[in-house]
Amino acid sequence: MNLEAEKLNKEIPVPLYYQLKEILLSYIRKNQLNAGDPIPTELELCQIFNISRPTVRQAVNELVKEGYLKKIKGKGTFITEPKINQEYTHRIVSFNDEMKQKGLIPKTKVLKKRYMAADENVAQKLNLTVGEEVFHLKRLRFANDEPIVFLDSFIPLKLCPGIIEVDFVNNSLYSTFEQKYGIVVKRVVRAIEVDLAGEYEAKLLNIKEGAPIHYFETVAYNQDNIAVEYTISRYRGDKSKFIVELVNV
Amino acid sequence: MNLEAEKLNKEIPVPLYYQLKEILLSYIRKNQLNAGDPIPTELELCQIFNISRPTVRQAVNELVKEGYLKKIKGKGTFITEPKINQEYTHRIVSFNDEMKQKGLIPKTKVLKKRYMAADENVAQKLNLTVGEEVFHLKRLRFANDEPIVFLDSFIPLKLCPGIIEVDFVNNSLYSTFEQKYGIVVKRVVRAIEVDLAGEYEAKLLNIKEGAPIHYFETVAYNQDNIAVEYTISRYRGDKSKFIVELVNV
Repeated sequence: MNLEAEKLNKEIPVPLYYQLKEILLSYIRKNQLNAGDPIPTELELCQIFNISRPTVRQAVNELVKEGYLKKIKGKGTFITEPKINQEYTHRIVSFNDEMKQKGLIPKTKVLKKRYMAADENVAQKLNLTVGEEVFHLKRLRFANDEPIVFLDSFIPLKLCPGIIEVDFVNNSLYSTFEQKYGIVVKRVVRAIEVDLAGEYEAKLLNIKEGAPIHYFETVAYNQDNIAVEYTISRYRGDKSKFIVELVNV
Repeated sequence: MNLEAEKLNKEIPVPLYYQLKEILLSYIRKNQLNAGDPIPTELELCQIFNISRPTVRQAVNELVKEGYLKKIKGKGTFITEPKINQEYTHRIVSFNDEMKQKGLIPKTKVLKKRYMAADENVAQKLNLTVGEEVFHLKRLRFANDEPIVFLDSFIPLKLCPGIIEVDFVNNSLYSTFEQKYGIVVKRVVRAIEVDLAGEYEAKLLNIKEGAPIHYFETVAYNQDNIAVEYTISRYRGDKSKFIVELVNV
């Protein structure tokens, strides 16, 4: 895609900065094979599109905030890595398998393992009574050493006695379910929301405070339709793109 | 849920503000039946949890930014309306039908209707050659008079001659497809991303710049597996929650 061939339309009620942003975005999407490549300088963009510096700056700054571009001081503005296409919203698939299929090396850090009493929210999601014991597992997961997602999982302890002993650095939750407890996840309901990284999420995920993140809440059910897992996952927005495919019958 | 019964844990490496935020969030989720209700004041929260004012403020401010709470000057901090649960990611369903099923009144404003030459991105998505004519429809959609989503749809003109004449305030795209052009949408692929509202989105959706939004790209296919629609939708994050259900076969 050639920027010089694109034109802004001063006749329509869409702001010029926004038109430029859309053009740059398709330029970026087209050229994402070359993450790390520079885009034209602000001055060059002013000249190509015959617009003012503040207009260019507004378009570029919004794209930086949204994670499509990054500025490197004294060097210029560069296209960032493309997002990882994930099927988390489309198939029941483990993070490790998903990353391996994409040619990425998965890694897991266990931030917390504990038994706790179910609070109202956890109890409701897992169909327990408040105060029943659950296992809380907090993990941070990486692809090629970059943090991608952190997960808080809650599992009814009565279904998985002794689960706190499991090494979740090297074992996934679902393989543990199957191999140690004979639990097969048959159905999963995910709620999809968006959120901003707060200070804590930003630190864990190595992104800026205020960056957009995917916020999923998942409840998984076994072969008998019993809730076996409630997980909150927070995925980096700049790294993650999810796919669903819907068929009308 | 009773805040007084909740405790912060000073022994674990999770920041206190973040623990408070999680507690307030489950308090909010529990009490969302009463949107518009106040939460305790900052001072009261300091006393209930025996923590400092800046800690309380950080938790409350992040929840305000994320849209769960709003501050009204001189009055206090209030719980916002719950998000609308939507099946956009789970079933092929029209916005109008979806809103009506939720007991909300849908409304559509048409912001733009035009014929244009497909650029590289549109051409690629719709399997056209660059420059082929497409119909571009930009709509803003409301539930109970609140803006929820704005959509940019691109449709190959050769499939729908004369489509620019259709009244899209009162007709949905899919009913137009079926009734006027005999096109039945059979399959839809959606990519799910997150984004921040820029100045333009913020104005249209009546949210703050920098608020998180859902960003979907959809390609729809007809009975012959021909791409009939490419749509970019931007949904308000504070109003929208999407559901998917996955079954392992």
